Amino acid sequence: MCQLMGMNCNVPTDICFSFDGFRRRGGETDHHADGWGIGFFEGRGCRLFIDWQASSCSPIAELVRSYPIQSTNVIAHIRKATVGRVSLSNTHPFLRELWGHYWLFAHNGDLKTLPELDGSRFKPVGDTDSEYAFCWLLERLAQRFPTEPAQAELHAALAELVPELASHGSLNFLLSNGTWLAAHCATNLHYIVRQAPFGQAHLIDKDVSVDFNALTTPKDRVALIATQPLTDNEQWTRMEAGELVIFADGVPRRL
Amino acid sequence: MCQLMGMNCNVPTDICFSFDGFRRRGGETDHHADGWGIGFFEGRGCRLFIDWQASSCSPIAELVRSYPIQSTNVIAHIRKATVGRVSLSNTHPFLRELWGHYWLFAHNGDLKTLPELDGSRFKPVGDTDSEYAFCWLLERLAQRFPTEPAQAELHAALAELVPELASHGSLNFLLSNGTWLAAHCATNLHYIVRQAPFGQAHLIDKDVSVDFNALTTPKDRVALIATQPLTDNEQWTRMEAGELVIFADGVPRRL
Repeated sequence: MCQLMGMNCNVPTDICFSFDGFRRRGGETDHHADGWGIGFFEGRGCRLFIDWQASSCSPIAELVRSYPIQSTNVIAHIRKATVGRVSLSNTHPFLRELWGHYWLFAHNGDLKTLPELDGSRFKPVGDTDSEYAFCWLLERLAQRFPTEPAQAELHAALAELVPELASHGSLNFLLSNGTWLAAHCATNLHYIVRQAPFGQAHLIDKDVSVDFNALTTPKDRVALIATQPLTDNEQWTRMEAGELVIFADGVPRRL
Repeated sequence: MCQLMGMNCNVPTDICFSFDGFRRRGGETDHHADGWGIGFFEGRGCRLFIDWQASSCSPIAELVRSYPIQSTNVIAHIRKATVGRVSLSNTHPFLRELWGHYWLFAHNGDLKTLPELDGSRFKPVGDTDSEYAFCWLLERLAQRFPTEPAQAELHAALAELVPELASHGSLNFLLSNGTWLAAHCATNLHYIVRQAPFGQAHLIDKDVSVDFNALTTPKDRVALIATQPLTDNEQWTRMEAGELVIFADGVPRRL
């Protein structure tokens, strides 16, 4: 299995503090050492860093930890290979374009069966069930909406399609189009919303604290989503099995 | 205008030496300071680093210069914005998936008119003519071949489509699907093939030399393509206007 981390906020924010803890689960505080990746939306653009090395010792992970990239939507993943060998093409998050937007997807879990992809315009490059699931989701959206629908229609379609996909196996995932971030829980997914009054946070995976009062304005709102909580002195919300939450401007809304 | 650099070889090779010279043209030895990017194919996977900062001072460029990523197909670009503002979504190379392969594209030049893209499954995310041209090319290939054709058929299709696209303006580009790399020249593009007996190379943009004898085996063959030659003591071949060359295993073949 793998670990997921996501961030959605109302102002561009860097994820250096949280990533510093998360990356240690890739080979140091946990055994997910079969590659890792992180994607940052910046405006309509998207930056994706992926590596087949363990995140705890990857030079690219060290850059991401020390280089504050400001983003409103981030998806990260560290991999423990179950389906598909260790290779760059099997490393999450996966990136595709639909309706003139980039989409990012990362998955934790195993699909026991694969949904039908014949004739799909979106095809997996690697051999993970995860990329297969992503392609299926985008293909179904593209078939339903030749051009980009209103957000409410799009979310209604996701609320229909995701349970169908989830019937194939264990499907914890994060999905973003740069405007919002969707989180679906099958077994393990937690989130926290940080907003004024801000406090201190202390990482679980490294003895480091940060005082968000010193780094934020009263209007800032940051939602952080992770397989397991990243801090030990804050109240994380555990998502329920089958729950699909859309985060926009740092606000969670259950679909 | 912008500057292009590409590499195609028969064994995975790092591009650190050449990139060290090339990156200086982004704000130091030349004025292409409006972002840069580089994409590396590794097996079927693809790693893409893009930044809107000048390549001469970007921390990501410093990582790429110092971290030897082994690849058989590389495309890099430094940007002097002409069409489209300075932003991550306008930064080359652009990445898409077709037939279960990633494709990278980078362009130097300006299209005076844009080809028809109505109903295309590939849509630009940013607002450059370059990404528009890439989407048009992939859409025409996808329409012609619902599944991946044999390589000879694919190259024949490119030989037909590229002149049509080039009729819209100035089109120097590099395109790769991870197996081969295509280079099209409108105004400025040069290449060199390095193979045994290897010699020394000295960069133009920095006083650094390398002795390839110490780094290669007799079977290695590396083709390097660039808008302007990167070294001052080797014989680069200047491509002709309208010339389309496919590089595979380091061997150039004119289409």
